[in-house]
Amino acid sequence: MGMLEFYGQQYLDGHASDPRDLGWMRGAPPPADKRITFESDCFRAFPQIRWSLSHMRELTTTVNVWRGSDAPSNLERFDRSSEIEALAFTDENGRSLGFEGALFDTYADGIVVFHRGRIVYERYFGALEPHLPHACHSVTKTYAGTLAAAFVHEGVLDDRKEISYYLPEMRGTAWEDATLRHVMDMQTGLAHTETYADEKSDVWAYSRACSFRPRLAGYDGPTTICDYLQTVRKEGTHGQRFDYLTVNTEVIAWVMSRVTGLSFAQLLHERLWVPLGCEHDAYVLVDSAGMSVAGAGLCTSLRDMARFGELIRCEGSCNGKQLIPASAVQDVHNGDHGYSYRSQWWVTHDEFGAFEARGIHGQRLYIAPEAEMVVARFASHPLASAEAGDIITTPQLLALGRMLRG
Amino acid sequence: MGMLEFYGQQYLDGHASDPRDLGWMRGAPPPADKRITFESDCFRAFPQIRWSLSHMRELTTTVNVWRGSDAPSNLERFDRSSEIEALAFTDENGRSLGFEGALFDTYADGIVVFHRGRIVYERYFGALEPHLPHACHSVTKTYAGTLAAAFVHEGVLDDRKEISYYLPEMRGTAWEDATLRHVMDMQTGLAHTETYADEKSDVWAYSRACSFRPRLAGYDGPTTICDYLQTVRKEGTHGQRFDYLTVNTEVIAWVMSRVTGLSFAQLLHERLWVPLGCEHDAYVLVDSAGMSVAGAGLCTSLRDMARFGELIRCEGSCNGKQLIPASAVQDVHNGDHGYSYRSQWWVTHDEFGAFEARGIHGQRLYIAPEAEMVVARFASHPLASAEAGDIITTPQLLALGRMLRG
Repeated sequence: MGMLEFYGQQYLDGHASDPRDLGWMRGAPPPADKRITFESDCFRAFPQIRWSLSHMRELTTTVNVWRGSDAPSNLERFDRSSEIEALAFTDENGRSLGFEGALFDTYADGIVVFHRGRIVYERYFGALEPHLPHACHSVTKTYAGTLAAAFVHEGVLDDRKEISYYLPEMRGTAWEDATLRHVMDMQTGLAHTETYADEKSDVWAYSRACSFRPRLAGYDGPTTICDYLQTVRKEGTHGQRFDYLTVNTEVIAWVMSRVTGLSFAQLLHERLWVPLGCEHDAYVLVDSAGMSVAGAGLCTSLRDMARFGELIRCEGSCNGKQLIPASAVQDVHNGDHGYSYRSQWWVTHDEFGAFEARGIHGQRLYIAPEAEMVVARFASHPLASAEAGDIITTPQLLALGRMLRG
Repeated sequence: MGMLEFYGQQYLDGHASDPRDLGWMRGAPPPADKRITFESDCFRAFPQIRWSLSHMRELTTTVNVWRGSDAPSNLERFDRSSEIEALAFTDENGRSLGFEGALFDTYADGIVVFHRGRIVYERYFGALEPHLPHACHSVTKTYAGTLAAAFVHEGVLDDRKEISYYLPEMRGTAWEDATLRHVMDMQTGLAHTETYADEKSDVWAYSRACSFRPRLAGYDGPTTICDYLQTVRKEGTHGQRFDYLTVNTEVIAWVMSRVTGLSFAQLLHERLWVPLGCEHDAYVLVDSAGMSVAGAGLCTSLRDMARFGELIRCEGSCNGKQLIPASAVQDVHNGDHGYSYRSQWWVTHDEFGAFEARGIHGQRLYIAPEAEMVVARFASHPLASAEAGDIITTPQLLALGRMLRG
């Protein structure tokens, strides 16, 4: 059986961990040792995660992101699978890899590649199917940040205003005097940690509050996202340094909902899913007050995530309609020097001027303007770190971009 | 404020209980006294239920019933709203009512009327919108029963076989020597009660096992539907008398999944949602083993439920394709004498030869062959009894059928 080693631990490899072959959640009912439940927390364990990330709604509460009634937008295809799968490249450890092997080695669940607006490559693996929404994890943040940037450029929000201006109940919390821009760029000073490997990290308290993880018996902490946010205190100074904390994105979404009167799921529906002509309803995890988990809770089909990427590559324009102000997109990728974070996008300043959305366990939406390429991928990597597969995926994306740029 | 009285209790009426006006689950976040949660069990209370039944997936775990990728089937329209709303009739208490007033008095959330295959009337109220799936409750049983009847008529299942033939793990339970036909017609002898008004009734133990109701702290009962079913013992004789018990439908669905290898949600997708050209994905509540709650857990858009009704009115044929064997449909409505239950359909033998699916709180799918009419309605009546509104709805349906028959 194929194994891979990460940090001295052995894991089933991308082939051997295929949840269909392992029989997870198969049978009526599935045998007890093949069940994946939320309460047990095993849905986050490996290899169960290879099934869970394509089945989140079966594990917890969700709200629909409706695609609307019109026919989906047509996606042109220009199949280049054989060229792409013939592509070899060297990973950051100096290992020579084939394109497909690299997908298995990073536990990819699916990949769609757009070049000049046409689908040149599309594959699905393991539990993922084209119509199934997959957990985006922190790619969710990028959807929230893009909507917020649009509202700022449209004058609906003012990113120089402090959070307490929009949310009076945030007085006395860490965000009282943080500007919306500080929050959008993760430049807040919070007494809050986000270390997935540490069970005592604050990120787990946040996860329990927002129903992203089960609560232990006798739990008496906050039971909603908003209640949790109001417990977070300031540490240091806002606007001084980048500190990647999911709770900031919840604040962005809360501000948007307060100002527009629409939930995050409704905003995604109105601003993106309908006008983009998405093919499938998406969904967002909700807490017990019905608030969307905007920091990590979106689940969408891969092709619809790629549609969003293509919209952004086209500076917010889709079929002649400007859905997101071009200035909002330009502001992102002109962003800061070096690898940086702007309006919830990672800006790489690589050879393609690429910027991207990233999610834990290997989700990536990579937009490479100078290669006219968009890559959307989902994965269920054993390690709870978006970086775990980068050693392979980053050079793979660069090799692909070079090939397509021609 | 408008009130209605049932059994000596006062309730907000159909207008006054509109969840939009009452502010349930509105705001970011909704105020604490306007929240509807699963854990508190308040989602089943009135007037919260007026919101909950259109938002079940936000309250518990669900699996998608995918409509497929093709365009929805076209529904012809021939609007007769003004005639229909001008219709007056006398309810079973001798009260004269207008058509629309009767909808409000029965807490209707929506109604679609087909006549000769065309939509002649369609309305939505309260929290329901055309694209939102609403809880079907026991109308779910009719979907399960229809699929089972189809499998019987296709030779996939044999309704003379005992349940233990299909499910060896049911040996020693109430169903060991019940035939599939006994179960399909609710003719089993079970030591099991289903009295919604009695908190100690077995139906609540079933509901907790299948994640339809919250579990109390320290709960140590069964945590899946299949585990629960195996605790039910025989009482009396099978095939002797009608006893309407939801657990029987869970057995039907379990048999179908065991034999076909497909979950109830997958069966609905393949056999109905795709070939009927349904417009919206539906969903089914799932237990912690991922098994569909086939006795009560389906949520579908109203128009898609009406499509199913129209299929059955047309004896299983849709656009020239025979989706359900005509013999299976004929077997239902030729059924027993008097008001009876056959393959999970209520057979009325009324003036239209009507048969129908019924769900607690006022759901109804009424098929009147001799009026060439199908009526699909959802409601959120304060009383947990499909009968509560019958005093109004039954004469209303008869009056409508007479008018349309002409």
